[in-house]
Amino acid sequence: MALSTAFTRLFGVEHPIALAPMGGSAGGALTAAVSRGGGLGLLGSGNGDRDWLSRELPVLAAERAGRPWGVGFQAWAVDVGAVEWALEQGPAAVMLSFGDPGPFAERVRTSGAALILQVTDLEEARRAVDLGADVIVAQGTEAGGHGARQGRSTLPFVPVVADLAAPVPVLAAGGIADGRGVAAALALGAAGALLGTRFQATAEALVDPATARAIVAGRSEDTERNRVLDIARGSRWPAKYTARTLPHPFLDRWRGKETELAADPEAGRSYREAVVRGDIPALPQWAGEGADLITDLPSAADLVTMLAAQAEDALKRAGGN
Amino acid sequence: MALSTAFTRLFGVEHPIALAPMGGSAGGALTAAVSRGGGLGLLGSGNGDRDWLSRELPVLAAERAGRPWGVGFQAWAVDVGAVEWALEQGPAAVMLSFGDPGPFAERVRTSGAALILQVTDLEEARRAVDLGADVIVAQGTEAGGHGARQGRSTLPFVPVVADLAAPVPVLAAGGIADGRGVAAALALGAAGALLGTRFQATAEALVDPATARAIVAGRSEDTERNRVLDIARGSRWPAKYTARTLPHPFLDRWRGKETELAADPEAGRSYREAVVRGDIPALPQWAGEGADLITDLPSAADLVTMLAAQAEDALKRAGGN
Repeated sequence: MALSTAFTRLFGVEHPIALAPMGGSAGGALTAAVSRGGGLGLLGSGNGDRDWLSRELPVLAAERAGRPWGVGFQAWAVDVGAVEWALEQGPAAVMLSFGDPGPFAERVRTSGAALILQVTDLEEARRAVDLGADVIVAQGTEAGGHGARQGRSTLPFVPVVADLAAPVPVLAAGGIADGRGVAAALALGAAGALLGTRFQATAEALVDPATARAIVAGRSEDTERNRVLDIARGSRWPAKYTARTLPHPFLDRWRGKETELAADPEAGRSYREAVVRGDIPALPQWAGEGADLITDLPSAADLVTMLAAQAEDALKRAGGN
Repeated sequence: MALSTAFTRLFGVEHPIALAPMGGSAGGALTAAVSRGGGLGLLGSGNGDRDWLSRELPVLAAERAGRPWGVGFQAWAVDVGAVEWALEQGPAAVMLSFGDPGPFAERVRTSGAALILQVTDLEEARRAVDLGADVIVAQGTEAGGHGARQGRSTLPFVPVVADLAAPVPVLAAGGIADGRGVAAALALGAAGALLGTRFQATAEALVDPATARAIVAGRSEDTERNRVLDIARGSRWPAKYTARTLPHPFLDRWRGKETELAADPEAGRSYREAVVRGDIPALPQWAGEGADLITDLPSAADLVTMLAAQAEDALKRAGGN
């Protein structure tokens, strides 16, 4: 009955569903829950901070019930030492996103862990193939959180990456938040789907409960992609990456004025003071264009099972059998 | 074997595939070819120009082999008289896009033709349901040619419209250019797909052969959406609609400067003079983000058959059977 793909066979998992390794919020409990549910949990290590990893890895180990797991890093932010340290923890996969994966690829491959590379355009996809990626994630601009400023849309992007990468399996990412989206990913030629925002709105995500509720209440058409909040909070994210977020008062004031905002230290100060006062959330409320499809806060393990069942139903219905 | 959906059953067609009624280029021969191939051809009447219709309708009648057909109009451009005149020609469907379909809906419904309404956001989708649409086309911003400036992406947009419109069947549009995209549309809960750019690159489309070749050669990542060429050519398209096109020298000069371009009559004059000299194409080369997937110039009837077969294969492969 289960949907078997090159991705599920590679990792020995039940369902063609992966957790986006969202920096800071895809912690040990969420990663373990996704793996327990039959998907592939990917710990969101971001820049490889060891304090964070030292806190989350034991949670993951305790809760993953022996299932495979992986860990994801931002290539622009992490150093080789942190990746090597993570490899010693025995992940089945290491995923690198955003930036040059070159310095890390060989270390991951020789460790025996699968190398997962996320790409946002065809040039990056070609490079991922050249670097020997075991899995390529094709991220569309519908994705919540960070992505390429000059992004591609998931539906027309995924089949082109699948053709370019074959036989390397591709996961579709960006705008997928229910089983129909997972089914569409498979129909497009992907071997599975990688979901972020949908997993932010679960019991196990390390997010402010108000943010999880805001995702449930949020509307896709109100999400937007820019650098305003990264500039305001003094983030080191490179300028070629924007982030898709829910509405925010600071966006209304600075949308389309990123250069002016960057040149105005007082604006950043007022943002950070508002955070300290509790007037605005401590972190931007990252959310993707699938937000309309997110209407509850389930446990992530149950969610994986439900997404897989929905995807199977959607494919049966679509195929008329 | 064929993919049966609420759309194929409504029109008695073989395949869940419709031709986007691209103004001027979806002429009688292309419309007839799509219908002969087992899809639903929709004549691209645009503003309802009777000279054009009087030329194309006989071609359609001669070549459609008794298959159902329809006709599409731009709601902002057409008048009720033109729609009524078209209804006298016996279309199975009338499609209205871009603008308020209110003045036309009742006339179409009482004629017995199916009312197809294209929507670009959820407010338009709700209105389409209220107006009694028989089919709703959910157009994503990946689409070639005109669409909403504040657009939605196809993959996360279609399932939400499908939920909102049920039991009214929905067609997915925008970025679909092969059978995998058609399969994805069905997996997302749509009853079929409406394709434009893919049908521009066929033997029967009324386009400059150089434009058809440019679509085959074109890259998705080079397409872009703005109003520059509409302003330059003095088009009456309302400002809320942008158009996705292939690269163009005028875009490189005026991208991001639409207000300045509109205020500069000399610029428009130089554009039109360059058209007359043959230095630039007579019309913008409209193309969607599916361009990467378009690599040949088949006959449209064969293409429909091939798309449907590819879609069936994609769903079987995705479902693992």
